[in-house]
Amino acid sequence: MTVRQSLEPSRLPGDYQFVHRIRTRFAETDAMGIIHHAAYLPYLEEARVAYLRHLGHPYGDVRESGQNFAVLEVSVQYRLPLGFDEVVEVHLKAGAVSRATFQLAYLLTVDGALRATAVTVHGCVDGSGRAIRLPSWIGESLGGQSAP
Amino acid sequence: MTVRQSLEPSRLPGDYQFVHRIRTRFAETDAMGIIHHAAYLPYLEEARVAYLRHLGHPYGDVRESGQNFAVLEVSVQYRLPLGFDEVVEVHLKAGAVSRATFQLAYLLTVDGALRATAVTVHGCVDGSGRAIRLPSWIGESLGGQSAP
Amino acid sequence: MTVRQSLEPSRLPGDYQFVHRIRTRFAETDAMGIIHHAAYLPYLEEARVAYLRHLGHPYGDVRESGQNFAVLEVSVQYRLPLGFDEVVEVHLKAGAVSRATFQLAYLLTVDGALRATAVTVHGCVDGSGRAIRLPSWIGESLGGQSAP
Amino acid sequence: MTVRQSLEPSRLPGDYQFVHRIRTRFAETDAMGIIHHAAYLPYLEEARVAYLRHLGHPYGDVRESGQNFAVLEVSVQYRLPLGFDEVVEVHLKAGAVSRATFQLAYLLTVDGALRATAVTVHGCVDGSGRAIRLPSWIGESLGGQSAP
Repeated sequence: MTVRQSLEPSRLPGDYQFVHRIRTRFAETDAMGIIHHAAYLPYLEEARVAYLRHLGHPYGDVRESGQNFAVLEVSVQYRLPLGFDEVVEVHLKAGAVSRATFQLAYLLTVDGALRATAVTVHGCVDGSGRAIRLPSWIGESLGGQSAP
Repeated sequence: MTVRQSLEPSRLPGDYQFVHRIRTRFAETDAMGIIHHAAYLPYLEEARVAYLRHLGHPYGDVRESGQNFAVLEVSVQYRLPLGFDEVVEVHLKAGAVSRATFQLAYLLTVDGALRATAVTVHGCVDGSGRAIRLPSWIGESLGGQSAP
Repeated sequence: MTVRQSLEPSRLPGDYQFVHRIRTRFAETDAMGIIHHAAYLPYLEEARVAYLRHLGHPYGDVRESGQNFAVLEVSVQYRLPLGFDEVVEVHLKAGAVSRATFQLAYLLTVDGALRATAVTVHGCVDGSGRAIRLPSWIGESLGGQSAP
Repeated sequence: MTVRQSLEPSRLPGDYQFVHRIRTRFAETDAMGIIHHAAYLPYLEEARVAYLRHLGHPYGDVRESGQNFAVLEVSVQYRLPLGFDEVVEVHLKAGAVSRATFQLAYLLTVDGALRATAVTVHGCVDGSGRAIRLPSWIGESLGGQSAP
């Protein structure tokens, strides 16, 4: 297995650059009475989209320019369950930027207390799904956070 | 980060014990025209549930006995996209069984060709979410595949 | 077919009592490039939950008191598609309150322009799914909006 | 409200032309311990897709020819809940075919017992979402079931 994931998601909110709040939905609960583990991936995605908007590069604009950020890898560590109607703070940090891929680390907390950590690895593809170079602003926006 | 995941998902279908077929849904596609990456987690779950049924321990029975298999970690490596209306073969293999956790490795193929690999780590919790020992049949059913 | 739905969802935002804003997610798009029609139901539900909180009866409290608002019927009229990253105003209005059921009408707009209308019909059930009388505050909170 | 829905979904399986079986997923349950009401829409869609394949017009082919079947309206009547790991028989019947729209009625049963009924109304749109005439095979395949 050639895992590209190299980021280590810190458990300290202060280590992250950005935070986005999401209130959990009843539709996302399961018969265990907690938020189903698959629902976390759209939470991470919503936080990414908010982060791109914050950086001045709304994902809608990125897509209109013919670029898509494909998800190459995802890993999530579920520490404590999320419940219905909780407000989750999704902390986000970029890193490991190369010509072809970048990574994002996430910390999910509720009232500051750890619930989950995650990492996603992304590449850039054109409209037909072919891998292309990352747009230059990625390196600039995430500058100083490049992998060695 | 204390990652518990230790399984390495093989790319060879022959290395897996069980296979379950799932046809992708249109509801699972996204605006890139492919299956959204979050949809893979319910695919893995459906394959797990089919595997438990195959082992003679339907998950409904497990839950009625007061046990739940909580998802502690998930990782997915997306190799090639899945499209709408494709029949995905989800190959599944158990391993790394301890007193408290077990792991499952997955290979997703379409017509035998690699699409994704994944690993999930599970613990056992009671109805109130407290960690409990795995039922004994887990070790027996997955015998010979225990971690050293 | 014994349809209980009797509310007519108005197309005028001014006819509604409450509005809740939801930004659409990329995970909710489909291969047509628009928000998948099934994603609207969690939008309606999120607006209901926000409305209950606004009324001083958070749904978490309702559930802790042993009551659940089961969905008996749903109907949605899709007028114009929703796109990725749009902010949807979900307007909500209660009506047709009886001893056993109540109804909610919805108008979905973006920048004030019509996108969809919907109606949901709800009953109250206990923890085992048995129908029970609506809590008295429902009639009071939605007072003057009862069915004749 | 200009509701186009005119079909009445019968409660008799024998009144339907086609049946498609779907096993419910754990990811589709909610904290009430039953299948969440929003999950029914992808069930109806999966049954539609299976029906189109049965008619010799797989939806992938329809889409490749530049046509999409947009959902204009949906209504669902939830009679008795669905539980985890139940095998649902989705019975399907077409009707009310006009130049621009067609309707489908659905009966959902488990072991032959009523769980839900539903109706969907569909139009045909091109790749940019503009309404176009239905392909001629729709009228032929659903012949004798046209609206007066």
